[in-house]
Amino acid sequence: FVCVGGSPWRMKSFIEYIAGELGLEDPKSEYPNICAGTDRYAMYKVGPVLSVSHGMGIPSISIMLHELLKLLHHAHCTDVTIIRIGTSGGIGLEPGTIVITKQSVDATFLPKFEQVILGKNVVRSTDLDTELAEQLLQCSNRLNQFKSVIANTMCTMDFYEGQARLDGAFCSYTQEDKQDYLAKAYASGVRNIEMESSVFASMCKLSGLKAAVVCVILLDRQKGDQLSGSHQVLHDLQQRPQILVGHFIKSQLESSGKI
Amino acid sequence: FVCVGGSPWRMKSFIEYIAGELGLEDPKSEYPNICAGTDRYAMYKVGPVLSVSHGMGIPSISIMLHELLKLLHHAHCTDVTIIRIGTSGGIGLEPGTIVITKQSVDATFLPKFEQVILGKNVVRSTDLDTELAEQLLQCSNRLNQFKSVIANTMCTMDFYEGQARLDGAFCSYTQEDKQDYLAKAYASGVRNIEMESSVFASMCKLSGLKAAVVCVILLDRQKGDQLSGSHQVLHDLQQRPQILVGHFIKSQLESSGKI
Repeated sequence: FVCVGGSPWRMKSFIEYIAGELGLEDPKSEYPNICAGTDRYAMYKVGPVLSVSHGMGIPSISIMLHELLKLLHHAHCTDVTIIRIGTSGGIGLEPGTIVITKQSVDATFLPKFEQVILGKNVVRSTDLDTELAEQLLQCSNRLNQFKSVIANTMCTMDFYEGQARLDGAFCSYTQEDKQDYLAKAYASGVRNIEMESSVFASMCKLSGLKAAVVCVILLDRQKGDQLSGSHQVLHDLQQRPQILVGHFIKSQLESSGKI
Repeated sequence: FVCVGGSPWRMKSFIEYIAGELGLEDPKSEYPNICAGTDRYAMYKVGPVLSVSHGMGIPSISIMLHELLKLLHHAHCTDVTIIRIGTSGGIGLEPGTIVITKQSVDATFLPKFEQVILGKNVVRSTDLDTELAEQLLQCSNRLNQFKSVIANTMCTMDFYEGQARLDGAFCSYTQEDKQDYLAKAYASGVRNIEMESSVFASMCKLSGLKAAVVCVILLDRQKGDQLSGSHQVLHDLQQRPQILVGHFIKSQLESSGKI
């Protein structure tokens, strides 16, 4: 299992959490950063689980995935399941809800990832593993600690203007334009917005890894652009993807007799 | 003065360096990270110089710039000069050469930055300050420690396929295709390739900041895709943008009688 997420600190917290869940705690609680020679990414490992940070945005996660895929290849890893855990803005869902991504769509709501290779546009599919998404949803239902849904995720290149926020350094549109855009996104099936899922889905599909995206909603974008909850509430919400994915990994290892 | 660069560690090293240059060293050599509450970015300040890390790629630097521009506005900063210092792959130039960006061009060699706002393509200019570039070049000539040139910089969304590398996890083209693409880039005036200059130029222009991009070349991409120099050589090359920009800031403050 490989879990990836934006923040180095959070991916360290994830490896500590999963070590506890799997009964693989280091008695000294030391989980060294395997990528300590760079400050671009952080990587931790416990038992059969790798936890890697990817920074923010498509280019940053794309560099990490190229290097991770080469690493998995040279390490002869097989049957790899990879899950991105993260945070997102929601549309029409309560903060705290988890969205398990059905399809990652672009800013025009189409399920594709476009990139420029040798100066030419190349379009790639952003399909994720349907069965894995369903298993994660069932796992959340069994846990019964928070609500999860399977829905489309919009992946944008920018956090402010690219997500119709009104509070960036520039804003050339109105509150009404913003609401129209979010309403169109909702109508197309989008329930949350983040910045890495499209290239993650596309690269995992190209390399034959089973992949899922599990993001918690921190706020309903139809109601605002900024977080209003307390630090503690925010912290608790951010734990949810790790609780769900931790539970999933544990149940998978149990059912295959590996723990 | 604001200096920005990819790595948090390097931007800490820059603030230590500039403190020494300006005779503003903290006797305890403690430069606290002003953004310590997050691990997404790091920010340091000494005298009139702010040093901020921006992570990798357009989306990552774009989030930081939105927040930095709001900060500069609320802090009533005026007459701000902002310089990105970084590393890059070169075309037809020796490793160690500094490229001061004339225009930041996209992967089709056009001087524009395209982004999607409310689902529609918006094209913005990537012009940088011509006078500032010229001043930096003259400063490098006076320093006489390494060669600098003013030339076009290509800004890509991806480090591997987006820069015609042959050593990513995927590669759907040949060595010959790669060389053709790099030769076309060279013919159009491109001398180096990195991943942040276009949105940096575009956002600084929109907000009226004097901006420059100063990147050292770590390797000639026509000769390979991977770094071959020793750790020490690499470290020395990476110091060059900070030496040039440190010298420039010092001479500007001296000539205006501020130090």
